[in-house]
Amino acid sequence: MIPFSVTILGSSSALPTTTRFPTSQVVNLNDRLYLIDCGEGTQIQLRKFGIKAGKINHIFISHLHGDHYLGLLPLLFTLHLFGRTKELHLYANEALREIIDLQFKASDTRLLYPLIFHPLTPGKSEKLYEDKKISVMSFPLLHRVPTHGFVFRQQNKERNMIAEKISELGIPFAQIEAIKLGSDYTDRHGIVHKNEDLTKAPTPAKVYAYCSDTGYYPKMIPFIKNADLLYHETTFMQDMVANADEKQHSTTIQAANIALKAEVKKLLIGHYSARYDELEPLLKEVKSVFENAELAVEGERFVIGD
Amino acid sequence: MIPFSVTILGSSSALPTTTRFPTSQVVNLNDRLYLIDCGEGTQIQLRKFGIKAGKINHIFISHLHGDHYLGLLPLLFTLHLFGRTKELHLYANEALREIIDLQFKASDTRLLYPLIFHPLTPGKSEKLYEDKKISVMSFPLLHRVPTHGFVFRQQNKERNMIAEKISELGIPFAQIEAIKLGSDYTDRHGIVHKNEDLTKAPTPAKVYAYCSDTGYYPKMIPFIKNADLLYHETTFMQDMVANADEKQHSTTIQAANIALKAEVKKLLIGHYSARYDELEPLLKEVKSVFENAELAVEGERFVIGD
Repeated sequence: MIPFSVTILGSSSALPTTTRFPTSQVVNLNDRLYLIDCGEGTQIQLRKFGIKAGKINHIFISHLHGDHYLGLLPLLFTLHLFGRTKELHLYANEALREIIDLQFKASDTRLLYPLIFHPLTPGKSEKLYEDKKISVMSFPLLHRVPTHGFVFRQQNKERNMIAEKISELGIPFAQIEAIKLGSDYTDRHGIVHKNEDLTKAPTPAKVYAYCSDTGYYPKMIPFIKNADLLYHETTFMQDMVANADEKQHSTTIQAANIALKAEVKKLLIGHYSARYDELEPLLKEVKSVFENAELAVEGERFVIGD
Repeated sequence: MIPFSVTILGSSSALPTTTRFPTSQVVNLNDRLYLIDCGEGTQIQLRKFGIKAGKINHIFISHLHGDHYLGLLPLLFTLHLFGRTKELHLYANEALREIIDLQFKASDTRLLYPLIFHPLTPGKSEKLYEDKKISVMSFPLLHRVPTHGFVFRQQNKERNMIAEKISELGIPFAQIEAIKLGSDYTDRHGIVHKNEDLTKAPTPAKVYAYCSDTGYYPKMIPFIKNADLLYHETTFMQDMVANADEKQHSTTIQAANIALKAEVKKLLIGHYSARYDELEPLLKEVKSVFENAELAVEGERFVIGD
């Protein structure tokens, strides 16, 4: 099974290039897919990289600049044409609801599947989704229109069984789930075996944080603190810092400083301006401040916590 | 200079495939570009085929099904980011205006160029545009939402000068334009030379007709009569005629019959269902009724009147 990971579908900023697509990423946990942003051509990229769009149940849109959402309607129509009937949850700025509804109306479309819209609250952090395996939080970023980052946090509350104890004590299969969740085990002789003798601490839950688009914004740090992997936009190199500040985008050095202060384990950069043909100089600048960094590149998969 | 021609950017129907893009075409006359429909990825295709989006001044949208217009907003944003200041004329169903405005509002975009919206009148034929070189007419098609076809007609009112007469009579350069438009020529001895002795009839003007999407609809024939090149959708092969009729799309044989009855010179087919990996069987069926036919294929340019 594919480990908890994120695959890059698009790494460009607003102007796409011949090799780079606008922003989109897929988080995979236990073969359930979570789509983050959906620039033009997202469905083209999904097909190209062999990722099944039908496995996406949750879509998170950071903000309503075109390069982050204009591939959404095409994807929604395609899922409809493929006969999807499963619920699809969409988390985005309230204004997107009307944009979608108007286009369904114009094309006389009645979706075959329930599209459940969850509006994001501008300027607020909220828990958007939670199940036994994952939780997703939003948090505000600094940009020209209301924009949110997202934190994907593995939920790992189950302790790990010590395998030898199962055979040694003859623990029935039916009891194991309860023990993993913290119960003691009483054997057929009435002897109670303490949970801490049967299990080891849970595997640490991994965390992925996504920040795009944003200017330099240290207020995000509490939300992304200690993340295993942080994606932070680097639209510009440091010589263009005035431009970045004006447009509320970030430079390489600004992203690296956020990663450093938030004490994340690894930094992934992207949302590159079309002016950069070569990306190595951006990575080099980032690494001068924060060494454990990588470039987001279309089709690359990054394991969270690797 | 590229002759009067049309280049295919997308040939698929609603579900794109790994090799086919949704509908879009570019008509080129004297290096001025006219875009017809704009499915997702149109700007990707323009870049791929080296066609300069900045040379497009007129965009015609047949109808508001997603596979015919969802690449428009991304293209409009890109032209804005490239600093376009020239007027751009958009011809489409009235509902598109609100769809566009809402998305500019959500992204806080004030376009740098004037976007001039010309609503199409459902069920009517109208002259949409005319200059010295070209005219564009709309006409209604048979589809589930209001849909128009378009006729691009070269305007060729200038007669051709007989080259030898220029040197023989010493006609000044400044007079030639007037003679081409029908004037006689009075030489310096006061002798009048009749226009018909100085010129030949104008080169016949070529006509391109575009019909997609549509069910079988003989009422379109007066609008496309004798066209040099007719693009007519063939979503399905003939065995799926019941499906085509229900969805108001056309089969190969239906398109060929329209071409035959309209006495067009050449037929171009496209808007293929994703079920067809191979397109030769569609062309073979078409040719059984109308021999001079070709397949629309991404990146191929068809000279109108060839």
